[in-house]
Amino acid sequence: MVVEVKHDHTEEVKNYLEANREEDIARLLEELHSSDIGRLLMSLEDEEAMRVFKLLSPEQASAVLLEVDERLRKALISSITSEELIEVVHEMETDDAADVISELPVEDAKQVLEGIDRHEAIAVQKLLVYPEDTAGGKMQAELVSVHETATIEETIEEVRKKAEEIENISNVFVVDRDGRLVGSVSLDKLILARPKTRIIEITNREALHVTTDMDQEEVAKLFQKYDLISMPVVDHEGRLVGRITIDDVVDVLEEEIFEDFYKMAGLHTEARALDPPLRAIRMRVPWLFLNLATALVAASVVKLFEGAIAQLVLLAVLMPIVAGMGGNAATQTITVVVRALALGEINFKNARGVLLKEVLVGFCNGFLTGGTAGFIAYLLGANPIVGLLLFLAMIANMMIAGLIGTIMPLVLKRFNFDPAISSSIFVTASTDVGGFFTFLGLATIFMKMGLL
Amino acid sequence: MVVEVKHDHTEEVKNYLEANREEDIARLLEELHSSDIGRLLMSLEDEEAMRVFKLLSPEQASAVLLEVDERLRKALISSITSEELIEVVHEMETDDAADVISELPVEDAKQVLEGIDRHEAIAVQKLLVYPEDTAGGKMQAELVSVHETATIEETIEEVRKKAEEIENISNVFVVDRDGRLVGSVSLDKLILARPKTRIIEITNREALHVTTDMDQEEVAKLFQKYDLISMPVVDHEGRLVGRITIDDVVDVLEEEIFEDFYKMAGLHTEARALDPPLRAIRMRVPWLFLNLATALVAASVVKLFEGAIAQLVLLAVLMPIVAGMGGNAATQTITVVVRALALGEINFKNARGVLLKEVLVGFCNGFLTGGTAGFIAYLLGANPIVGLLLFLAMIANMMIAGLIGTIMPLVLKRFNFDPAISSSIFVTASTDVGGFFTFLGLATIFMKMGLL
Repeated sequence: MVVEVKHDHTEEVKNYLEANREEDIARLLEELHSSDIGRLLMSLEDEEAMRVFKLLSPEQASAVLLEVDERLRKALISSITSEELIEVVHEMETDDAADVISELPVEDAKQVLEGIDRHEAIAVQKLLVYPEDTAGGKMQAELVSVHETATIEETIEEVRKKAEEIENISNVFVVDRDGRLVGSVSLDKLILARPKTRIIEITNREALHVTTDMDQEEVAKLFQKYDLISMPVVDHEGRLVGRITIDDVVDVLEEEIFEDFYKMAGLHTEARALDPPLRAIRMRVPWLFLNLATALVAASVVKLFEGAIAQLVLLAVLMPIVAGMGGNAATQTITVVVRALALGEINFKNARGVLLKEVLVGFCNGFLTGGTAGFIAYLLGANPIVGLLLFLAMIANMMIAGLIGTIMPLVLKRFNFDPAISSSIFVTASTDVGGFFTFLGLATIFMKMGLL
Repeated sequence: MVVEVKHDHTEEVKNYLEANREEDIARLLEELHSSDIGRLLMSLEDEEAMRVFKLLSPEQASAVLLEVDERLRKALISSITSEELIEVVHEMETDDAADVISELPVEDAKQVLEGIDRHEAIAVQKLLVYPEDTAGGKMQAELVSVHETATIEETIEEVRKKAEEIENISNVFVVDRDGRLVGSVSLDKLILARPKTRIIEITNREALHVTTDMDQEEVAKLFQKYDLISMPVVDHEGRLVGRITIDDVVDVLEEEIFEDFYKMAGLHTEARALDPPLRAIRMRVPWLFLNLATALVAASVVKLFEGAIAQLVLLAVLMPIVAGMGGNAATQTITVVVRALALGEINFKNARGVLLKEVLVGFCNGFLTGGTAGFIAYLLGANPIVGLLLFLAMIANMMIAGLIGTIMPLVLKRFNFDPAISSSIFVTASTDVGGFFTFLGLATIFMKMGLL
């Protein structure tokens, strides 16, 4: 297999298509991994992608369909006959087949389910019942299981039977006569045992398992925590119904981290760069209205000090610096805190230390940048008292940034909210309010003292 | 094994420690996974953690050391004798041993290397040569390899020999007489072959492999792209020197996503919530100075319009709303774009569509939120022309947000910079400048036209 980390065949394929040299494309496709073919199709125009897709074997086509995005998948599926689609779905593992079928219009889905092998159809239909983001939704029905009374010899025979259709067999699962999970045996243990031994003697009865309704995030965390490669899934009666493999979990882990940062940015977790405009608007505008509400609060603080600004317009020029620097410092704090919460590095024991540290860091960074800002303002001709004002307000606001940036996610977590949720909106609102209030408030005091 | 997803033993252990009931703690520890023990130790005071750590068997202790953070690991290591440490390191896989030894003071590292088994010491020393973030730094020396002339029977015998000391054997690697990698055989293939067959007949010669100097991020992407569980690592002469397993890679993937968002927030990728204050200041202050420079640019735009503000102070009250809303909209855009670039969903073919969409979304969201903001300002007693001004400026600035939020990461990528790098600083600077310029500029025009 040729690894194509960087090489891009788009131009080559476009030229072949223009010259109708399909046989050259077919030769190229044979050498590529489905993942690279998927990327290639996504870089072509839809009609070009369809022409290339038609050149794939059903086996290749089934793998490639899983590598392209939902929009292109629909286009490619619509370009083949329902007989071809049935053949392609037949090549898929049950979990992937269920995902693809769930995207089809009801009529087409029915037709495909009727077309494929009956056993497979039943397995797929069972999977369609589970919500996509649960263990049931992530599991596949393909697995090797044997009864607890089987011998090693019989177990190996079972592996042999299944090896053609199942990829990545790393464990054999052992069940009792009601189909309930007893434990699992890894292949290396199986290789080393004597043929006549009973499987139950080498079964790990304490193998981890999950139930179908466990949230995918929890499943992923178990895989990560215990360095697992595959895990059996059982129903509420403890019966073995499927297995989850690490490759499905890697994507979930990635998804969950992205979600944290999405929430911080005030984004619906399902928002994507390629969403159509209406969907993008619908997903973003609620957060923007929330942001508008907080911006109005910040504006009302400025309104309190209209008198000071009327007296010295320079205050209006400099106040965004105080607010903006606080916002940035708060974003830094909240990003490290949300990460540490996600990884379990912060708990309520060490939170106080983190809080004190963040406020101290805010003071020091405010001292350094505020000092610079004040000095620059003075150099540019401002009254030195204005420079002092800028210096003091920036120190105060960056301490506020450290305080709120640490407390906000901790409080959200304490009350069982997601610590990341729209935290950047709330935190920058706090630093806007804090920045305007300290800067304009101090200015008013200085004015009353006759210093300004 | 008991899975402890949520249950917390901290209080229980603290009580036992106070009552000097070490035997009860020992009983509890036996039932816990090393990952849970690590978490437990991190939630205790250091002296308590040391007392608990002493109760662990060398095998448990070696696993637990890898689960705690670097600070606590150093504390725990300093609490045991060098004989105990040698025993603990001996229990580790070579890659983990190398990581732990690299953290020790030179003298201690030497002592440990002299204390452990000679073969192991040589393997560890070889690993110590590779930078931590390369394939060489991530690989372990433990693997099963056989010469290409071996039979299946001999190969299984080799697996048997190694099975005790090596976890997660999923593949056997085949080498030629110079130790060069020929290919790999998965265990399920091995189980199914006849004992007298030569291994070379079932060897997958096209198995992916990487060289020791490949960056860990690229390695992780290969695992993800090709759904791998383990991969052989070769040196520049093609000789097999180690293997990387999926559990090491999952952490790398997680790391890399965090890094993207760190960079967006203007954070050094190695910043952590538990850093000491000085380190935190050193890592954050450069970005804050960059932010100060951009804030000064934004302030200078406001300075241009001092005259307009002097005439109508309400402008200073409302201008942060325009800037802030633009900043938030830009953060939404840049977050989806950075994610899509990381996952390869956006390329230069579809970037124009994304750009047009983002500007359109900016227009619509600006229309909705700007209309609301203008109407609220009017209700609160502002001149209706000021409301109109707010409405128009918010539309303009949120279109700027969509434009810059899409273009900035794409341009950075085009010139081979990281698309995430401090993008939130640059993008919010653009929306600050854009917001102040459109709002105050329009106000000036309206004033000149006699409307205000």
